[in-house]
Amino acid sequence: MAGSRRQAGRPVTPVLNRERIAQAALELVSADGTQKLTMAALARHLGVAASALYNHIGGKADLTGLLQDAVMGRVDVSALKAFREGTGTLESALADWARSYRDVFAAHPSLIPLIATLPISGAPATRRMYDVVAAALGHGGVPAQQVVPVIIAFESFLFGSAMDVHAPASIFTSQPGESDAPHFQRFVESFTATLAVTAGGTGGDGREPARDDGERNPYADAPFALGLEALIRATLKLVP
Amino acid sequence: MAGSRRQAGRPVTPVLNRERIAQAALELVSADGTQKLTMAALARHLGVAASALYNHIGGKADLTGLLQDAVMGRVDVSALKAFREGTGTLESALADWARSYRDVFAAHPSLIPLIATLPISGAPATRRMYDVVAAALGHGGVPAQQVVPVIIAFESFLFGSAMDVHAPASIFTSQPGESDAPHFQRFVESFTATLAVTAGGTGGDGREPARDDGERNPYADAPFALGLEALIRATLKLVP
Repeated sequence: MAGSRRQAGRPVTPVLNRERIAQAALELVSADGTQKLTMAALARHLGVAASALYNHIGGKADLTGLLQDAVMGRVDVSALKAFREGTGTLESALADWARSYRDVFAAHPSLIPLIATLPISGAPATRRMYDVVAAALGHGGVPAQQVVPVIIAFESFLFGSAMDVHAPASIFTSQPGESDAPHFQRFVESFTATLAVTAGGTGGDGREPARDDGERNPYADAPFALGLEALIRATLKLVP
Repeated sequence: MAGSRRQAGRPVTPVLNRERIAQAALELVSADGTQKLTMAALARHLGVAASALYNHIGGKADLTGLLQDAVMGRVDVSALKAFREGTGTLESALADWARSYRDVFAAHPSLIPLIATLPISGAPATRRMYDVVAAALGHGGVPAQQVVPVIIAFESFLFGSAMDVHAPASIFTSQPGESDAPHFQRFVESFTATLAVTAGGTGGDGREPARDDGERNPYADAPFALGLEALIRATLKLVP
């Protein structure tokens, strides 16, 4: 790739390559969202001229594919690969893949709307991920026509679940005096009380643990486990 | 509410009220995304002074809640309400609600990341929606501690499914010569061939119908039906 070698004695600046550009693009969208991702903004963020970027990136579409690969390439498909090679069960391999997928996108929530609707053509790491998942589902006996619908159903759930990781812990909390959703409020309290107890009773009065700092939503894991199991069961039931 | 009456003989301009403001805010975010939603931009869009807006809206947080209510208030909970009053089954009422929820957000995809993480306190129409869903699940026998996890699992899936409605039909299509995901590609063809036949064989050769215009993704419905059934089955299994 052009620009990957430098003459001896030149100032030491990090070599510009697609990996470094992908990392910078990820930083940029994580901070500012995908709308701010332009070749010009990326060049600024990297401290290089836009023309230098174009030595490595064909343009905005190429950049988007690079970003997609940088994220999708982190999704751990090793359990699905192992299952296809004869080790483990489809059930547990799907669960491992889904947990990794959710974690990867929870680390980059601003990318979800973009990647959820982005063609995978021209994104080799992304295509590799889909190929392993599809091959494992086929190997597990899911009928050919159902493999892609299964993957999309999982992804829809995983994208939404990754967003929920960033919901504030107080998303369903009523303010004092707010009494217009009594049923819902009662069920919210039943749910958060269980978790406060599980987490060591930090809530004291059985209400939610004091935790609303924009970090990981403590109430995201139970719904995720419930939905994931539902999808895995439904997938296994497709096997004749 | 201030400003809802006008003197006779004054020029006919639409009365500024919370409903009209909510509608304008929806138009604005549908066109430009939520990042462009400011009180100043909204005033410009409505052709009024920002000070006029503040007669009706307390500020950005109030505006966000108004927007949330404008969307969530459109979700059809009538089947769940009827179920709680003794008509119909939880199964079919959940399916009706979920389909409506997905349609509403498919009409406003740019709002999904915002609303997925927005507290519901102070948004009465949103709280009403949750109250009806929760009451129906409780009435159907879902254990109290599971009602909220069930709702969140559905929502995660519904948010993701609403985004998938806007995926291009060609999202998984390989370009000529692109052969790095052979398993996945084979399963994509199996899936799209079924649909082309179902849709009247418009594809001719059994490949996808010619449809990639940014409109409704023809391949979104099968995964949605699959995931929805999985979640409904799992919910009914929670009933002791």
